[in-house]
Amino acid sequence: MRLGFIGLGIMGRPMALNLLQAGHSLAIYARRPEAMEPLTQAGALGCSTPAEVARQADICFTMLTDTSDVEAVVLGAADSDDQSILAGIQRGGMVIDMSTIAASVTRRIAARLEEAGVMMLDAPVSGGEQGAIDGTLSIMVGGPEAAVERARPLFEVLGQRIVHVGAAGAGQVCKACNQVVVAQTIAGVAEALLFAQAAGVDPGKVREALLGGFANSRILEVHGKRMLDEDFNPGFKASLHQKDLRILLEGAYELGLAMPGTAQAQQWLNALVGQGEGDLDSAAIYRVLKQLSRS
Amino acid sequence: MRLGFIGLGIMGRPMALNLLQAGHSLAIYARRPEAMEPLTQAGALGCSTPAEVARQADICFTMLTDTSDVEAVVLGAADSDDQSILAGIQRGGMVIDMSTIAASVTRRIAARLEEAGVMMLDAPVSGGEQGAIDGTLSIMVGGPEAAVERARPLFEVLGQRIVHVGAAGAGQVCKACNQVVVAQTIAGVAEALLFAQAAGVDPGKVREALLGGFANSRILEVHGKRMLDEDFNPGFKASLHQKDLRILLEGAYELGLAMPGTAQAQQWLNALVGQGEGDLDSAAIYRVLKQLSRS
Repeated sequence: MRLGFIGLGIMGRPMALNLLQAGHSLAIYARRPEAMEPLTQAGALGCSTPAEVARQADICFTMLTDTSDVEAVVLGAADSDDQSILAGIQRGGMVIDMSTIAASVTRRIAARLEEAGVMMLDAPVSGGEQGAIDGTLSIMVGGPEAAVERARPLFEVLGQRIVHVGAAGAGQVCKACNQVVVAQTIAGVAEALLFAQAAGVDPGKVREALLGGFANSRILEVHGKRMLDEDFNPGFKASLHQKDLRILLEGAYELGLAMPGTAQAQQWLNALVGQGEGDLDSAAIYRVLKQLSRS
Repeated sequence: MRLGFIGLGIMGRPMALNLLQAGHSLAIYARRPEAMEPLTQAGALGCSTPAEVARQADICFTMLTDTSDVEAVVLGAADSDDQSILAGIQRGGMVIDMSTIAASVTRRIAARLEEAGVMMLDAPVSGGEQGAIDGTLSIMVGGPEAAVERARPLFEVLGQRIVHVGAAGAGQVCKACNQVVVAQTIAGVAEALLFAQAAGVDPGKVREALLGGFANSRILEVHGKRMLDEDFNPGFKASLHQKDLRILLEGAYELGLAMPGTAQAQQWLNALVGQGEGDLDSAAIYRVLKQLSRS
C-alpha cells in the first residue's frame, strides 16, 4: 500500500520503520530533516512538506506532539502558503492520527476532512517506545467502521490490541482516560510505598504482598519497581504525561466536569517538570511526594 | 490444636468456621451471643468472656472492627474487672490479630504480651467476605519469624497468599498501604469513566481498551465493572474503607507524612458515608464524583 508518515520522534520512527518493513511504500516528512535519515536509508522517500507526502500516499499517518501540531500539519495554518496534508491528499484517501491530542479538535479535523472526501481515524497508542519498536502497542481507535476495517491490517503491524472505541474523537477520549488512571495509580502506589518506608517497613515486601490482592495493577508491578529502585529512566516521560493531562483537563473544563484527582496528579507532574525533571519517567511523581515530607 | 476466636462478624464467622472444619478445637466469643450460634451448632464452645476463650486456647484469634476494640479485648480496659485475653492466656500462648487497626497500637499490644511470655502476630487480610468463605484471603503478617512458622498451617486454612512483611505492626502497615492504593485506583478509574461518559464515549468500550495496557488493574476489572453497572453491592463496605483510611491518616499525622491523594480519597468516602451510603461497596466513590458534575 502507498503510505505516508509524518512525525519521526521516539514513537513515530520505529512505527514508520515497522510499516516499511511490512512491505509498504512509505513517503515521510519530519521538521528536522536528520530525523528522516534512518528511514530513507531503509528505503523510505523523504519529502519536504506534508503536502508532498500526501500526494504519494493513499493513507497518511501522523505522530506529533500536540494538538496544534496536528492541526497545522493536517489542515494547514490559515496565514501560510498551504503545505498541509489536506492540500496534497486525494479524495478517497485517509488520515490516521496516532498522536495524543484534544478530542474536540480531532472531531473538527475529521469533519473538515470528510467535506474533502477524506476519511480520518484518531488512533492514539499506549505501550511506549518499547511497544512501538516491538509492534505491540495498544491502539485506541475512533472513527467510522469502514475506515477502521481498511486500516486494520496496518494497525496489526503496529500493535497487538486494537479496540474500536467509537466515532471520531473516541480514541482520544479513551487515551485521555488511560492517562487519568495511570497518573492516579502512580500517585497512589507512591504514597503507599512512602508510608511503608516512613513506618519502618520494607516497601519491597509491601509491594510483593499487594501484588496478590485488589491493589494489584500493571503500575504497581512496573512503576512500583521503578520507585523501589529509584530508577526513573523512561518509559513514558513526565513532560508528555503532563501535556496529555493538560489537554484532558482543558476538555474537562469545556465539559464542566470536575476531576479533582486528576487535577491533583497534574500538580505533581507540574512540580516534576518545574524541577527540570520532565525527561524522567512519570513514576518519578514518587520523588515529588517524597520531597513533601523530607526533613 | 486448641484455638480461640473472638469477633464473629462478616469476616470472622466464616474464618472461624474454616478453622473448625479443618479439625481444630475452637472456643469462641462475640459481644452479641446470637453471632455465636452457627459456630456452636458446628461444634465450637461458646464462652462468655475473652478470658474464658483464652483459657481454652493455645492460639487466640481476634477479628474486630477498630483499634480500641482490639485493645480492650486483648489487654482489657483499665477500669473494669479484667476479662481480657491477657487475663486468661498462658505463657507460651499466642494471639493472632487479623483485624485492620493502627500499627502503632499493634506494636504496643505486642510488647505488652511479650512481657507476659505471649507471642503476637498482626495478620490483617484482603479479599473480602468471599475470600473469607472460600479460604482464599491474602494475609499480611507482622511479627517474629518463629511465631509466623507456628501459625503458618492455620493461615493456610484461611488464605492463599501469606506474606511475612516484617516485625510487629508490619502486617498493619502493609494492609494500610493496600487500602491507600485501592482507594486511589478506584477514584482514578471513576474519574476516567465519568470523563468518557461526559465526552459522549461508551465507558464500557473504554474500560475494555484500558484492560490491555498500563491502566490495567484488579480495580479496573472488578470495581470498574461495578461502576458501569452502577451495582454497588459490597464487596467491601465504604464505611470500613473510611475507617481504615482514618487509622492510616492518623498514622501519617504521627509520622509527619503528607498523603494528599489519600486525604482526598478519604473525602469521597466521608461524603458517601455522610449520605447514608456507607453500606455500599467503596466503588461507589464513583457516585460521589458523578454528583459533583451533575446538572
